[in-house]
Amino acid sequence: MESSIGIVGSGVSGLHLGLFLLANDVPVTMYAQNEPEEIRRGRLLNTVGHHHHTLERERSLGVHHWDAAEYGYVCHHHFIAGDQEVRFRGDFTHPSSVIDYRLYLPRLMEDFQERGGKLVVVDALGVEEVNRLSSRHDLVVAAVGRGGIGDLFPRRDDKSPYDRPQRQLSAGIYNGITYSEPKGVNIHFSPGHGELLELPIYSHDGFATALLFEAIPGGDVEELARVQVDEDPTAYDRLVLEKLRRHFPMAFERVDSTEFGLWSPRDLLQGALTPIVRRDYARLDSGRHALAVGDCHVVVDPVMGQGANSASYSAWTIGEAIVADHVYDERFCERVARRREEFVISVSEWTNLMLNPPPHVLEFIGAMASDKALCDEFTTNFNHPDKQVDVLGTAERTRTFLEMRQAAAVGNRG
Amino acid sequence: MESSIGIVGSGVSGLHLGLFLLANDVPVTMYAQNEPEEIRRGRLLNTVGHHHHTLERERSLGVHHWDAAEYGYVCHHHFIAGDQEVRFRGDFTHPSSVIDYRLYLPRLMEDFQERGGKLVVVDALGVEEVNRLSSRHDLVVAAVGRGGIGDLFPRRDDKSPYDRPQRQLSAGIYNGITYSEPKGVNIHFSPGHGELLELPIYSHDGFATALLFEAIPGGDVEELARVQVDEDPTAYDRLVLEKLRRHFPMAFERVDSTEFGLWSPRDLLQGALTPIVRRDYARLDSGRHALAVGDCHVVVDPVMGQGANSASYSAWTIGEAIVADHVYDERFCERVARRREEFVISVSEWTNLMLNPPPHVLEFIGAMASDKALCDEFTTNFNHPDKQVDVLGTAERTRTFLEMRQAAAVGNRG
Repeated sequence: MESSIGIVGSGVSGLHLGLFLLANDVPVTMYAQNEPEEIRRGRLLNTVGHHHHTLERERSLGVHHWDAAEYGYVCHHHFIAGDQEVRFRGDFTHPSSVIDYRLYLPRLMEDFQERGGKLVVVDALGVEEVNRLSSRHDLVVAAVGRGGIGDLFPRRDDKSPYDRPQRQLSAGIYNGITYSEPKGVNIHFSPGHGELLELPIYSHDGFATALLFEAIPGGDVEELARVQVDEDPTAYDRLVLEKLRRHFPMAFERVDSTEFGLWSPRDLLQGALTPIVRRDYARLDSGRHALAVGDCHVVVDPVMGQGANSASYSAWTIGEAIVADHVYDERFCERVARRREEFVISVSEWTNLMLNPPPHVLEFIGAMASDKALCDEFTTNFNHPDKQVDVLGTAERTRTFLEMRQAAAVGNRG
Repeated sequence: MESSIGIVGSGVSGLHLGLFLLANDVPVTMYAQNEPEEIRRGRLLNTVGHHHHTLERERSLGVHHWDAAEYGYVCHHHFIAGDQEVRFRGDFTHPSSVIDYRLYLPRLMEDFQERGGKLVVVDALGVEEVNRLSSRHDLVVAAVGRGGIGDLFPRRDDKSPYDRPQRQLSAGIYNGITYSEPKGVNIHFSPGHGELLELPIYSHDGFATALLFEAIPGGDVEELARVQVDEDPTAYDRLVLEKLRRHFPMAFERVDSTEFGLWSPRDLLQGALTPIVRRDYARLDSGRHALAVGDCHVVVDPVMGQGANSASYSAWTIGEAIVADHVYDERFCERVARRREEFVISVSEWTNLMLNPPPHVLEFIGAMASDKALCDEFTTNFNHPDKQVDVLGTAERTRTFLEMRQAAAVGNRG
């Protein structure tokens, strides 16, 4: 008796799950909206970092094609603009990396097919298609953030504090910016206007810098998310330079303006998203169940670089649960929900907290600025979102944590 | 900065948690209603098996004072009375054991004190006391099944199917019954009247047999739970013998009637309990939180011998969470709830299922009667209640499991 799993979507969660199932001899069909080659030639999809825990899963699946020692980065540089410039660094225990998804996804789709996975490219992937597909499979995993499939899974109001985007986004790949040393992601804060993430990306033409502007609505950076680039790419470059100079001087100082510019209009992605947590699973018309994963389940703002990592973690949890069980009913879905909740919900809570930091979070950032060990821990905990919320979730948690840390330091000196 | 944990109750969950915390240098105070010596001299408390996972925790705590190789048992013998007698055995991978709690609890209370734990014996342990105590501690763990403390934690109607006891209970320690070979717990079914568990117990006067009658209300065995023993112990012995002869002939055949009899009236416990699942935690008047554990959290009928094991598992989960965290707020309580839910709720669901077995469970028992490997697996899974529900939770789960098993057997022969 063979169970068959249907995965709707071919993003990172769908692929990691599909490859996991193939490695465990579970028959699986993946439904995608695009051929690998279309994705390669397409528009920038995101600028997402894969952290160590995700890279470990890639290694275990045999799809870590871009050795983090060569393609990755090892730290976060933090820059706070203002009358007094603040610069501080946090090191990872293990490197992370940013590989353009137009390289990453097609390559893993091909891995999936080469290993015997069935990839079906379909025109549309909506709620209706999911319902129809479900009769062919014991379980459907809904792994598409767009196209309304998320509507299958009701919004969890208790975990979804926002009803609109908290940032307007502009992500693009640029020439003409020197990397910081050591190679890292640079996180710039411009109070009142938002954040800029500078990411050392590897893309179709090699290494470059991705600039992800996280613009606070109503602030001076927001227009980067709205201005059309195709009409006048050079004007867009000038606008970006101007925003860097005014709001992110510690990025601007590494710009060579004669070289500076977007690779091409297709290397820019503009938009905005509303953070949301949806229910873990739904019962379909066929009586079978569908599990939500990735953006179909939880949408987070990209500011903390957690979305893909959370999606991959979640996919792995689903894969392990599938292999361990033999019926994919509500009990199974509840188990998946329980096992991933701490990680996945922490990703959401932590990211939401950083978008609108309360005083105790600002105090913690201040503490990191003068305590590199603390900043290293925070940086490595990009792999442990649950620990980030343990420390930052409430004012009491942060205060107690910092007090215990100080007491331990005194004890060590004593 | 030291956190202090208050444990209310000195049963197995309180003691395992208290000893765990001492081993991890967490200050802890235990509030008990009785001195160890009172418990030693008292009435029979229960007749509960500790399964391998619980014994492993005892070994890790250094309180496994009754080596399972010497004091324990290795299997379950099953007996179904009727025109056609059915006998079948299931072996554990590792032995379990039944130590009289009048030996077990006082010894561990002394271990707790010898290791620096603070034991406070108080007159009353009710809701009021818990509220008052909570101001002295960062967290209170409510580990008393009686005295109304459970009222702090509302009943979970979704997990509590019963509003009355499903069995009337009579548990006593008897002479004059030869053990089965190999040494095991004997499980007797008398359709319509209930179950009898024969347990090889070690108690204050050495080895003996505990008989736990699980009488269906209205059946012919029920009076064992009601007849007063103190007035005429010999009459009670005669009544027990008569019930054995009529309903549990495969126990009766090993009785030497000249030797048979209850050790003493204080070695008998009669009663009944209503299975219930309560909420995991509550916020107290002091603003601190209280976690429920053991019978304060989940009450199961003793028929599957799971209560103490589930309580110990739950205590361990709490201990690990305490050591890993630094604030014992709602986030902490939610984490404990999530981590123990699969095990603890499965104990409840599985036990409730066995009390009123639907057709697919009876079919499974029938399958075990002719498949020793299956019965061994079921027996060892007394350590894995979650796996029992995976297999028995629904008719579809049982059918699919048995089909897969058969397919695998054919494959192995092919």
